[in-house]
Amino acid sequence: MDNFNFFSPTEFVFGKDRENDAGVYVKKYGGSKVLIHYGGGSIVRSGLLDRIKASLGKENIPYIELGGVKPNPRDSKVYEGIETVRREGIDFILAAGGGSTIDSAKAIAAGSLYDGDFWDFYSYKTHIEKALPVGTVLTIAAAGSEGSGDSVITKEDGMLKRGAGSDALRPKFSIMNPELLYTLPPYQTACGATDIMAHVFERYFTNTKEVEITDRLCEAVLMTMIKETPRVIADPYNYEARANIMWAGTVAHTNLVGVGREQDWNSHGIEHELSAKYDCAHGAGLAVIMPAWMEYVYKHDVMRFAQAAVRVWGVKMDFFNPELTALEGIKRFRMFLRSIGMPINFKELGADVKDIPEMVEKMGIGSETGGFVHLKPQDVANIYQIASDAEI
Amino acid sequence: MDNFNFFSPTEFVFGKDRENDAGVYVKKYGGSKVLIHYGGGSIVRSGLLDRIKASLGKENIPYIELGGVKPNPRDSKVYEGIETVRREGIDFILAAGGGSTIDSAKAIAAGSLYDGDFWDFYSYKTHIEKALPVGTVLTIAAAGSEGSGDSVITKEDGMLKRGAGSDALRPKFSIMNPELLYTLPPYQTACGATDIMAHVFERYFTNTKEVEITDRLCEAVLMTMIKETPRVIADPYNYEARANIMWAGTVAHTNLVGVGREQDWNSHGIEHELSAKYDCAHGAGLAVIMPAWMEYVYKHDVMRFAQAAVRVWGVKMDFFNPELTALEGIKRFRMFLRSIGMPINFKELGADVKDIPEMVEKMGIGSETGGFVHLKPQDVANIYQIASDAEI
Repeated sequence: MDNFNFFSPTEFVFGKDRENDAGVYVKKYGGSKVLIHYGGGSIVRSGLLDRIKASLGKENIPYIELGGVKPNPRDSKVYEGIETVRREGIDFILAAGGGSTIDSAKAIAAGSLYDGDFWDFYSYKTHIEKALPVGTVLTIAAAGSEGSGDSVITKEDGMLKRGAGSDALRPKFSIMNPELLYTLPPYQTACGATDIMAHVFERYFTNTKEVEITDRLCEAVLMTMIKETPRVIADPYNYEARANIMWAGTVAHTNLVGVGREQDWNSHGIEHELSAKYDCAHGAGLAVIMPAWMEYVYKHDVMRFAQAAVRVWGVKMDFFNPELTALEGIKRFRMFLRSIGMPINFKELGADVKDIPEMVEKMGIGSETGGFVHLKPQDVANIYQIASDAEI
Repeated sequence: MDNFNFFSPTEFVFGKDRENDAGVYVKKYGGSKVLIHYGGGSIVRSGLLDRIKASLGKENIPYIELGGVKPNPRDSKVYEGIETVRREGIDFILAAGGGSTIDSAKAIAAGSLYDGDFWDFYSYKTHIEKALPVGTVLTIAAAGSEGSGDSVITKEDGMLKRGAGSDALRPKFSIMNPELLYTLPPYQTACGATDIMAHVFERYFTNTKEVEITDRLCEAVLMTMIKETPRVIADPYNYEARANIMWAGTVAHTNLVGVGREQDWNSHGIEHELSAKYDCAHGAGLAVIMPAWMEYVYKHDVMRFAQAAVRVWGVKMDFFNPELTALEGIKRFRMFLRSIGMPINFKELGADVKDIPEMVEKMGIGSETGGFVHLKPQDVANIYQIASDAEI
């Protein structure tokens, strides 16, 4: 096991009606003037925005609204947020939405306390040392941003999708009411589930030996997702299944399931070019890329893939030919993804094989990426090709 | 799933040599004058105390030492600590040791900021609202106190063992170097492992339905313990096995594996009377009590015990007679405990069946305890009796 620090100071406030305490938690964590940050009209139409405002009002906390965050959140909205925060003297950002909204809120929180261009953080020029406090009211189980120190923003000029991370970005609190997910369409629900599973797999495939506790925790989250996701696709108002997925999504990405080990994250990097190019859902892109990545790299550690197949997917171990077990596990993953309505190849995603060279180029790998297997640009191109052609 | 808050703000600093950064973390969390709190001479002899002092010296942080914490830590030492803190103007408590030392440090931290008698917290007269910051350097994997808001203290007058809990008691940081555990005797190692497993089982047996994610996380910790504990008993210098157990012990008790569900904790309550009466190790007492409690209550929810048997112990499900599966799981647990050198009955523990009425009386159950199964005094007596007679 590698040395590590684990730090997840967010207070998670989970369950029915908890959004009505948003004001209480903003106050607890020192907010005296709030930017409510959100995306489209759904939180307006559902009444969630009104409930949040009422709870702030109850605590006599003034607020400014900034809506309009898009999926794959853009730098332009971040600049607008930073300007608003500075102009209005805001000291707390409350994100109401999914990963895009929370990531945008984090970028605003860090950018507001930084003298330079916030994009410096996302172009790896400097590290985020401080940020305004952020709280969240989560409306999609997917990105895990409610419990992570990560943020991904897309620069409109060139559609560059880049991430930044810092403990300073970890939310002070995250309010998580599974009922708020009832009205999510099945496709978005499935995209979220795929993202959650990908967050685990990115940590599961490691070259670090003997990290049994994190292996088992990874498997715990994956098995929960395999059980609960089809239930929620079939029955969107199933509170218990929604609740299990929602909490699993957080556990998947606080880094609890990844400490003490080298992680991969190549599938995320390879996918980011798809969602930047086609503006597709991140989860849908991952559904296409991740099994392709697995097929391309599994020979690097057949027994690790066999372990996943046996422990997660319930495949019987082929002791004579573990490779067959490993491959069966990958096949089960792809079958699962299709069963919940995810695309599994370029055609189903709406991607075009002719764009592969451009995406490889934009990924900006000079020589090679790190992780479980080091990938050169040609490897990335090969993985896109496998993803393009995939069938069951 | 029940509504819950989950809050584990401790920064865990895990791995080789990390104790040399104790001073850095004390400074990070605002300590300017430190009480180093510890137990016996082992941390002196091993050089750990000197390394901690050197790291505080490097940051120019003055300190006072207070050693002599006993297992089942006593109120007298807490009073001494509170007096020292107030006299010396100390603003940070650094506990170097195991659960007893950390629990004592937490009691001092809370008591120092309280006008009345600190025992008020432990006799349920009032709740802990604030405490001095506590940091830990952990030397035993067992109690989970390094990541919890809990503390258990024994009042010498009458040997009353009582607990208090508050988020204010959660350590600011916990330094966890598995190498510090190398010299733990096998018996203490096994006691710690038993305590860790008990912390999970106390949460696993619940009346709350459909908490798959916490079920799976519980099972993840238990399976890790079942794999790693025998390795460490056989080979105390096995870093990887020590590391897995040490981190599993923390995960077992931050409450991550218990959120969203009713918990039990009767075995802990019943055991506390054993360790208060005989001054035996808490883990050894749990090894005797917990399987007895399981045998006494399993009919309350046979399928839950069958699930534990199948998923944790690898028992084949008897679909015709699930009760046999449930019982086989309990048997495997007791066999496991014996295999790692734990006592499994009163005689092996050094307890006496004639003391049962006194222990039941001292437990102070007016009518009945709550949890998975509500227990009346006669039920507690019956569980002690089963524990007394247990054999494999």
